[in-house]
Amino acid sequence: MTAGEGVRGLFAPASIAMVGATDKSGWSVATFANLRRHGFAGPVHLVNPRTEIVHGERAYRSLSDLPGPVDLVYVMVPTPVVLDVLKEGARLGIRHYVVLTAGFGETGAEGRKREEELTAFCRANGLTVLGPNGNGYINAGAGITPYGLPIPPPLLRGSVGVVLQSGALASSVLAFSQARGIGLSLLTSMGNEAVVSVTDVIDHLVDDPATRVIALFLESIRRPEEFARVARRALAAGKPIVALKIGRSGLASRTAQAHTGALVGDDAVIDAAFRQLGVIRVRSLEDLIITAGLLASSGPLPGPRLGVVTPSGGASEIIADRAEDEGLELPAFAEETVARLTEIMPDFGSPANPLDVTGYVVVDRTLLSRALRIVAEDPGIDVVMLLSDLPRAEPPDPEPVFRLYEKSTRIIAESPRPVVIVGNVLTDVGSFARTLQDRTGYPHVVGGIEHGMSAIGAAVRWSAARERAAVRPRAATPPPVVRGERTGVWAEHRASALLAEAGVPVVPSELAPDEEAAVAAAERFGHPVVLKAAAEGLGHKGDVGGVRLGLGSAEDVRRAHREILAAVGASGLGTLVQPQREGGVELLAGVVRDPAWGLVLAVGLGGVWVEVLKDSVLRLLPVDAAEVRRALGELRGAKLLTGARGTEPADLDALAEVITRVADLAGALGDDLESLEINPLLVRGSRIEALDALVTWRT
Amino acid sequence: MTAGEGVRGLFAPASIAMVGATDKSGWSVATFANLRRHGFAGPVHLVNPRTEIVHGERAYRSLSDLPGPVDLVYVMVPTPVVLDVLKEGARLGIRHYVVLTAGFGETGAEGRKREEELTAFCRANGLTVLGPNGNGYINAGAGITPYGLPIPPPLLRGSVGVVLQSGALASSVLAFSQARGIGLSLLTSMGNEAVVSVTDVIDHLVDDPATRVIALFLESIRRPEEFARVARRALAAGKPIVALKIGRSGLASRTAQAHTGALVGDDAVIDAAFRQLGVIRVRSLEDLIITAGLLASSGPLPGPRLGVVTPSGGASEIIADRAEDEGLELPAFAEETVARLTEIMPDFGSPANPLDVTGYVVVDRTLLSRALRIVAEDPGIDVVMLLSDLPRAEPPDPEPVFRLYEKSTRIIAESPRPVVIVGNVLTDVGSFARTLQDRTGYPHVVGGIEHGMSAIGAAVRWSAARERAAVRPRAATPPPVVRGERTGVWAEHRASALLAEAGVPVVPSELAPDEEAAVAAAERFGHPVVLKAAAEGLGHKGDVGGVRLGLGSAEDVRRAHREILAAVGASGLGTLVQPQREGGVELLAGVVRDPAWGLVLAVGLGGVWVEVLKDSVLRLLPVDAAEVRRALGELRGAKLLTGARGTEPADLDALAEVITRVADLAGALGDDLESLEINPLLVRGSRIEALDALVTWRT
Repeated sequence: MTAGEGVRGLFAPASIAMVGATDKSGWSVATFANLRRHGFAGPVHLVNPRTEIVHGERAYRSLSDLPGPVDLVYVMVPTPVVLDVLKEGARLGIRHYVVLTAGFGETGAEGRKREEELTAFCRANGLTVLGPNGNGYINAGAGITPYGLPIPPPLLRGSVGVVLQSGALASSVLAFSQARGIGLSLLTSMGNEAVVSVTDVIDHLVDDPATRVIALFLESIRRPEEFARVARRALAAGKPIVALKIGRSGLASRTAQAHTGALVGDDAVIDAAFRQLGVIRVRSLEDLIITAGLLASSGPLPGPRLGVVTPSGGASEIIADRAEDEGLELPAFAEETVARLTEIMPDFGSPANPLDVTGYVVVDRTLLSRALRIVAEDPGIDVVMLLSDLPRAEPPDPEPVFRLYEKSTRIIAESPRPVVIVGNVLTDVGSFARTLQDRTGYPHVVGGIEHGMSAIGAAVRWSAARERAAVRPRAATPPPVVRGERTGVWAEHRASALLAEAGVPVVPSELAPDEEAAVAAAERFGHPVVLKAAAEGLGHKGDVGGVRLGLGSAEDVRRAHREILAAVGASGLGTLVQPQREGGVELLAGVVRDPAWGLVLAVGLGGVWVEVLKDSVLRLLPVDAAEVRRALGELRGAKLLTGARGTEPADLDALAEVITRVADLAGALGDDLESLEINPLLVRGSRIEALDALVTWRT
Repeated sequence: MTAGEGVRGLFAPASIAMVGATDKSGWSVATFANLRRHGFAGPVHLVNPRTEIVHGERAYRSLSDLPGPVDLVYVMVPTPVVLDVLKEGARLGIRHYVVLTAGFGETGAEGRKREEELTAFCRANGLTVLGPNGNGYINAGAGITPYGLPIPPPLLRGSVGVVLQSGALASSVLAFSQARGIGLSLLTSMGNEAVVSVTDVIDHLVDDPATRVIALFLESIRRPEEFARVARRALAAGKPIVALKIGRSGLASRTAQAHTGALVGDDAVIDAAFRQLGVIRVRSLEDLIITAGLLASSGPLPGPRLGVVTPSGGASEIIADRAEDEGLELPAFAEETVARLTEIMPDFGSPANPLDVTGYVVVDRTLLSRALRIVAEDPGIDVVMLLSDLPRAEPPDPEPVFRLYEKSTRIIAESPRPVVIVGNVLTDVGSFARTLQDRTGYPHVVGGIEHGMSAIGAAVRWSAARERAAVRPRAATPPPVVRGERTGVWAEHRASALLAEAGVPVVPSELAPDEEAAVAAAERFGHPVVLKAAAEGLGHKGDVGGVRLGLGSAEDVRRAHREILAAVGASGLGTLVQPQREGGVELLAGVVRDPAWGLVLAVGLGGVWVEVLKDSVLRLLPVDAAEVRRALGELRGAKLLTGARGTEPADLDALAEVITRVADLAGALGDDLESLEINPLLVRGSRIEALDALVTWRT
């Protein structure tokens, strides 16, 4: 049995046993009620060695006593006997378990040992276990609900798969999804992930035909490489992942550690990783579910140009503000669109995008739909956004409302472009509205302009990320020939040689063992020149008096050579002589190893930009030049590269190519590399040159 | 009758006439139903010259035919006859009107003329009119609802007063307030503000005992000075104003113009004005109502230190992230708090802030309240935040729930610190939850962590703004003696003299009419010196070759003098000689006249900070040094002033004092001033010096 088969089986049992079932436990009561209430068709066996009747039904003494086969065991016994239950189950050939019981890895050294034992036993015996210390799951699609907290009806079936590294928030997610009329395929509360991990469940959801979108609540990403793998699979399969990853603040990291014992990685790296992997990062539970709900109903959105149809000027203006925040465009309507809108609009209206069809909708209820039909045919837009609330209460005579919505439904269905319907404010979708949608097929309505615009922005960005991912990555760079031992710190002359071999333009330099050699080299380059200490293992040579700039004469060179040798000691190889460069913009381009995510490329502008503004962009390796080009555009100081303050505009394509070579080199150097840094990387138009470099190895 | 009396009367009529009432108009049907359904106790007279029965009741031919006195007329007649109705009403002594009819200022030149006529007539005859082109108002406190769109029951009474420059959004605000269980005192849909303006209504709400918080939706601020006046009154009265001001993006400004014909001012100035006036700016309708609802229920929050009590680790971590965004603090609990929490918490819990009392609440429902009681007594916190959702559905037996909430209510009431209760996610407060709160007195529950944290942050900032406002502003600077004509552009030598007289330190300088004088001045200052063109009316002298830096010898000075005169022509007065300054941080400090808000102080760092990052802070005049000090801290490059990159830390108090003098001078110069700018203002520790200055006058 593969891991995938195990997980598939976990979520699709035909019969369930609850071991440790008791009327005294709220969890047991809730789990049993959930299974009975939400449509589980198979037998539910109750196991309790000390009571004959539990939840009003016959209980058995042990798994071995059960009258029929069991596909899944829901374990609620005290911590010390959890493993015994698994052992008994394994003997009986039962493969799938949910362990609700706490007292494992989350509780210190003894608990961790207990959890390791459990993991080892399950791996050795091929058991698939969700938990421990987790509430279980809700397979809404199939009506299978071995879940330890109450699930208030109605349980809405849909295509959003939810994976949560938090038990208590599952109830909030359920409540909010229900309030928004967003149906789920599967919801899992992961617990300690002793056996089945978040990535195992994502893997399953990528293959699950009932799931179109995956929503995650993450406290920590335990295995980044595994996460990257499943995220790429999801993107390739066209299933968006939306994630609320907490621990943005330093404090939150501390909290997460207290809570789960999991390490929370550096947030900026996670941000970069998510962006590259096409994972949509959101900042609230509302955005998590609303964004997933939009993507589940609309699928990918083809582009950022919105045509907006509203019955309100005020709302149009809120939408315009939010569109700008989200990088969405509201292009002017085509001439023909304006002409057609003018025909149907009242005189006091203005046929512009965003369109306010005016309060005249009170008089003519079809006005909004007719305007929608016209805007949807505008050649300059990618997506139509219709602002319209579902009714909050059932009217005395609902039939005209049904007819109106049937008509709107037809118009929306006929639109040549995707139509996203958004309500004004975030309120619940009531039972009448749900009935209305069920009866007429009227589409999903996104919850309010504020969260709706975030969701549309995210959906557009996801669609673009998906298109980019469809372009094949280029072949890996062959490992370079590295002369010399891969240990410690490689000073500039060796680091630069390595870069030059990899095709990175490096400022010319000569190693000068003595004064005479330095003077001769300076003559060859032409004054002024730069002298630097050339010593193995010397990192920041500027800090120890190992750099002299602007040397204009032979005399200057001699003195500088002597001073540098005096400053760094006899360990040196002499000095490195280079021509002095003037002007341009200085960048910092480096690759460092993140303990969780591996090699990460960091690019920033020098000076105040990194020191005061912390202005840098990160990318996980590997990257291609297009990705580096996008990264450069994200720098806050990007304008300096395009000619602000009188600087010469940089050749950004050439720059991206050079940085990509640095990244490729780092990637090709493999596991020995700790970091590779060029500082500064000088850019003057299309002339790009590494002026200094440093390589550090892991040993 | 004063304007205030007129507005008070507008919102408190004892009898209402609907002129133009007809069964054919949705507005008429809705208005009549609203008045009948939501508790209006007085008579409602219907006027229609052509129909005897309207809305099932007798209609009269005209206002003159009505059988009793009328306090308010709701006008729905066609545009051309609106003024006739007002004239008839005025003859009958009727003072108050709501005009629903459109076709006035919002529809072009003819409509504007019609509106001016209406305004003039009303002013001349002392009529108070809401509208035209507005839906009316909802006085929820008194149950008076002359309002043209349906108001779905229940209409919740409360203490949030809402003023909207948008008709259509009123329904969204109503729906959302109701969904959140937030009661309103008054809601007005302003229309064109031909007579009664937004600021008139705010003035009324400041005096209205039923209103604790004022919520605004603003498309434009038509009279900024008036707005500033009422905002200061509200702050002094302890009534927070929360505002959603649209037009953040350029595009939105355009839209607003199309929609209302109102000018939308520069958004950065509005941002600065709001901050100074203690107006809380929000970005969504949800934040508008949620923030107002929090402030209405909790009042001011004394400080930023939160003690957080939750039943969920995941939620704690979301709260920690959001607290950081909002500048809120989560201090470690005091030792005694930790000891007391340890006693009641399960072993696997961790008694830290934010507190996760763990899923054990499922077993012990009193755990959360008991933890709250302990945290509320921690000496290091200002506010307690309790994460707890109201029940979504009515349980089969509600009595135990009532008892539980009664107990919690008592514990919350006994807290020595304000307790803010926040739900996990933003869902509706259902009818059972409303009943529960009515029966037990359980406080308002803020809608979800995401918007709740924004609201708490805003409430804390508002409370701080209120405290600052309580400090009396210092006396105005007496007008300075200004030598010379207040016209055109004053070049550096005259601008500097003006600054120096106002106590602003200015770099020494001498006007040199010829080469010899320049050389002599340079000798006196000591080399190197700076030479600048001294010519009346010359603004940016650097741009025309009018500045020479780093002149190290008499020869340099002579050449520079000749070149400058050649560059700027014979119109000059010669050159200005100054000692050259080195090092330090360059600032730009200026006062400019905003067409809407008057004089605005702008402070920024030089170089890339203003050119690339647009990093500047704005303040309306007058300002005191404390406000300038805070403004300096808001600069993104503020770290450069505190010693980043090896700069000497600036004496920020001295700097704020100098900039305040510049602002005071500008304020004292009065209406003739267009702008006054120091660029650069050099800061080296406590040495602050204006190196160049420019004054431009309005004529």
